[in-house]
Parts: sequence; C-alpha cells; structure tokens
Amino acid sequence: MATNGQKEEGLGQEFTKQVIDSFGPKTDPRLREIMASFTQHIHDFIRETQLTTDEWMTAVKMINWSGQMSNEKRNEGQLMCDIIGIESLVDDITHRKLAKEGHTGTNSAILGPFWRADTPWRENGTTITFDTPKDAQVSFLYGQITDSHTGKPIPNASVELWQASTNGLYEQQDDKQVEHNLRGKFRTDAEGRYSCYCIRPTPYPVPNDGPSGQILEMLDRHPYRPAHIHFMVIAEGYQTLVTQIFDSGSDYVDNDSVFAVKDGLTVDFVPRKGDPQADWQLEYNISIGPA
Amino acid sequence: MATNGQKEEGLGQEFTKQVIDSFGPKTDPRLREIMASFTQHIHDFIRETQLTTDEWMTAVKMINWSGQMSNEKRNEGQLMCDIIGIESLVDDITHRKLAKEGHTGTNSAILGPFWRADTPWRENGTTITFDTPKDAQVSFLYGQITDSHTGKPIPNASVELWQASTNGLYEQQDDKQVEHNLRGKFRTDAEGRYSCYCIRPTPYPVPNDGPSGQILEMLDRHPYRPAHIHFMVIAEGYQTLVTQIFDSGSDYVDNDSVFAVKDGLTVDFVPRKGDPQADWQLEYNISIGPA
Repeated sequence: MATNGQKEEGLGQEFTKQVIDSFGPKTDPRLREIMASFTQHIHDFIRETQLTTDEWMTAVKMINWSGQMSNEKRNEGQLMCDIIGIESLVDDITHRKLAKEGHTGTNSAILGPFWRADTPWRENGTTITFDTPKDAQVSFLYGQITDSHTGKPIPNASVELWQASTNGLYEQQDDKQVEHNLRGKFRTDAEGRYSCYCIRPTPYPVPNDGPSGQILEMLDRHPYRPAHIHFMVIAEGYQTLVTQIFDSGSDYVDNDSVFAVKDGLTVDFVPRKGDPQADWQLEYNISIGPA
Repeated sequence: MATNGQKEEGLGQEFTKQVIDSFGPKTDPRLREIMASFTQHIHDFIRETQLTTDEWMTAVKMINWSGQMSNEKRNEGQLMCDIIGIESLVDDITHRKLAKEGHTGTNSAILGPFWRADTPWRENGTTITFDTPKDAQVSFLYGQITDSHTGKPIPNASVELWQASTNGLYEQQDDKQVEHNLRGKFRTDAEGRYSCYCIRPTPYPVPNDGPSGQILEMLDRHPYRPAHIHFMVIAEGYQTLVTQIFDSGSDYVDNDSVFAVKDGLTVDFVPRKGDPQADWQLEYNISIGPA
C-alpha cells in the first residue's frame, strides 16, 4: 500500500482505513483485495493532488457523460480507459497470467471499443470490404491458425476481423457504410487456414465527440492510432486470443494514442501480383495455446 | 509517487512514464499534475492487484451504467464516489483550503446526489412538507446566519434546505410526492434569520437500483445514511457553504454509508410547546466566512 504521508492533515490514512474496514465479512476475497487497493490508491491520489470539490465534480460529469454516450455500438467508458493505457495494462497482465498457464503463442492486444458481438460469418476467400472508397488499397489477407504447443493446424477455429475504413470510421460510427462493412468471421479449413479481402489499414483518430476526445485535447495529445486490423480467434479447447496487427510502415506505430502496440504485432504488407482484386497481400499466421 | 515495485514484470513504471510523457507542452499545469498522479495511482492499483481484462471490463460496464442512470434529477456517478468516501475526502480538502484563506465558520459536508438547481423560493415561517406522511414528526427549524469573522448577522442570504421523506425517498425519486416537496430556499431577514417547518429527518438507504447499491451489497455493507438535513448557504461576498446536519439520536451516525458525518454537525431536536403545527424544534445557527 502506498502511504504518501507528506500531506496528511485532514482525512488521512485513518479515514481510508475506515472506508476499507466497512467491507463486511461476506465480501468475496478477490473483490475485497481489488476494492481495498482501489480505495487506497484513489484516496492517496486525491490527497497527493489536494483535489477540490469542483475538480472532482468535473471528473464525475465527464464519467457520467461517457456512460451516456455508450450503447451497444460504442463504449466510451472503455475509450476513457484506453487513452491512459489502462486496457493495455490489464491486457498485458491477463496475457502474462495465461502465459504462466502454458500459453506461448501470438501476443495479445486490446479489444478496443468497436468490436461487435453480432459480426456475421463469411466464406474464406471472400471480401469484407463493401462500398470500398477510392483511396482504399484492397489487400488479400491469409494465414494459418496453429496450436502453440504442437505446431499443428487448428481446423474449425473462428477468426474474426474488424477494421476502420479510410475515413477513420468503423461501420457503426458511419451511416454511409453498410452494416458490418469491414468486419467478418471466418471458419478455418482442414489445414487451419483463413483468408479474405480487406483494405490495407490506415491511421485514424479516436472519436473526438465525447469526453475521451476532450481529455486528449486538454492533454495536448494527438488522437491517432497507427494503421491496424483487429483479430479475435476462438477455438474449442484453446484460449481465446484478442489482438491487433500493426502496419510497420504506418505513422504513429511509435506513439499510439491508446498504447496498444506490442512486440511481434507489426507486419509488412507486400505487393500482390496477378490478382485483379487486390494490389497488396499479407500472410499472418497465429498460434494459440490450450485452454 | 507510489512505486510498489514487487510485481514489476510486464508493463511496469516505464510504461506508466510513457503514458504520462505523452501529455503535450500546452497542457494546463494543474491538469498535468492531476492526470499524472491519477495515471500513476491507477496503474499502480492495476499492477498491485494484477487486475485482469474481465475484472476491468466488469468495472467499465458498471461505470457506463452509472452514467446511463444519471440525469438532471439523479447523479449515480456521484453516488459511486460517495460510497467509498471520495466526496467526503474532496470536501474535506476543499474546506481546509478555504479555512487557510480565512474561513473559520460552520463545517462543510458533501452535497450528495439529490440537490436540485431549480429549488423554489419560500417565505420564512412557511412549510416545506406537503403530503406529510403519518409517521413524520413535523419540526420547526430556525436559526441565524452570521459572519464568521465579525459575528454580525448576514441579511439577504439564501438558505436552501432539502431532505428525504420518511419512506427514504427524495421527491425526485418518488412519484407520490409533489414536485419540490421537502425542499426550499429561504431569504434571511434583516437579522440574518431563517425559519421553516420541515420533518424530523429519518435514516434511509441510498438507492439500490443501480451500480452503487450493487457494490454495497457485494461489499457486504449496509446502505443507510443517518437522519440528516442538507443545507446550502449562499450570500454575496461570502464563501458558499454546503453542509448537512445530523440528528444525534439517529442510527448510523457512527457508520454513515457515504462517510459524511463530521465534527460539529450533529444536532439535538427538542420538544416544541404551544405550536399545533409542530412537536419538535431545532435552532441551527450557521457562520460563513468572507469570499
């Protein structure tokens, strides 16, 4: 526990202890651990900064606003966490816990606020880009899903992909894109392979119409994410992998506004020849560990 | 800054520094101080508890839910803070800052989530209790507002009061109470005096239909507040005072679910004689400091 004793007049550690001691005996031990540590750190933060009522109320209003903006298609509360690295940090912790249990496959990355639970199934080799904008570079994306322990292919796995369009918007943010544009689930074949046409991703700013955008502006920060494609891989008997791949040539790979870029997740698109449907291609193989 | 170095594998202090260093040069210095300390403590909390993605997402959903429940009449985000003592802590800090600037009057207490900006003016000596329930004990409440430096009365001050009914609900929570029941603003007379009929307050639970109630239950805590009446005193040239007075005979005075009880704010109602309108009375004098 932090103590930060330097400004201890007023409601100090005794007050914090009083709050934590109010938790009753039937509290789940893990919840007690989490809420005690959270209360301790939030109180220490407030004492350290000598936070005033007006400053706190400004924060409450922004947090309420983030909830009010959130719905089935958008999670602003999640984005509020993302811009100060919270989701990357919990993702890293979660991935390391799995690694200790034997998972040694492809690195994870944050889910982000634009995943949808109702993404449609599509056939391997088909496209996820409809209404393709003129400035988009269509790419063929393919790869194999393997067992991180045996190296063997995993058939019948679900490989879900989602990406923003070149205007920086996911389809649920953009009335002009068809429902579920640039989004799809693919079932791996007998050799564990998936494939589709998508667009080569481009950098985009996180939404600036809510409290997250306002905070980024107040912190004099850019809102951009490097070009990336989201993946979620689910297979029976394996740990679910949520990750992102980042175009190594993209701006902002070194200073992602949500701090999601990790080792091993940068990729190089290469020119594709003899395919009238696509100018670029990327092979991306993924390994996942047993559950 | 806390360090808590014991679990430093993975995204450690270097990652936290990267997030804080992303704040640009145009950031307001006070905002930088607040956000740097907040980021540091939240990251330390996450590392200390080894918080997982699922646990974090549970918290995001509850915080979004609190925003979605909040509106002009209800502030669930504020209540979420109140149940772990955050509002009392920032109130204490704010009051001490004012005290250093010369304010030495009546102690402050938290605003709470049920204040309304559009409370009507009423005449001194009139009532704020309409639809008075059978189990309510009507009380005459009166007092004087004085300057904490000179001791002189302050005429023309606004004394705003609000309280819950005996069913534990404020009027905005209860369709059966008339609009602005148990709520009113009074203008002090030439001697700085205010007076009204109200009800003797009773303990009540904070609302249990949202995330705050759910958290209290999960933490095996009671949701009750001791019997109290809210005050807000505003006078030109003086510091605004937000406070609460607590009935010293009430249950929960020693373990308020929102940790708001402070020294000097407990009061004793006494029997009132010869007034058919009220069985109890309370004189409560308030002193406020220059702005």
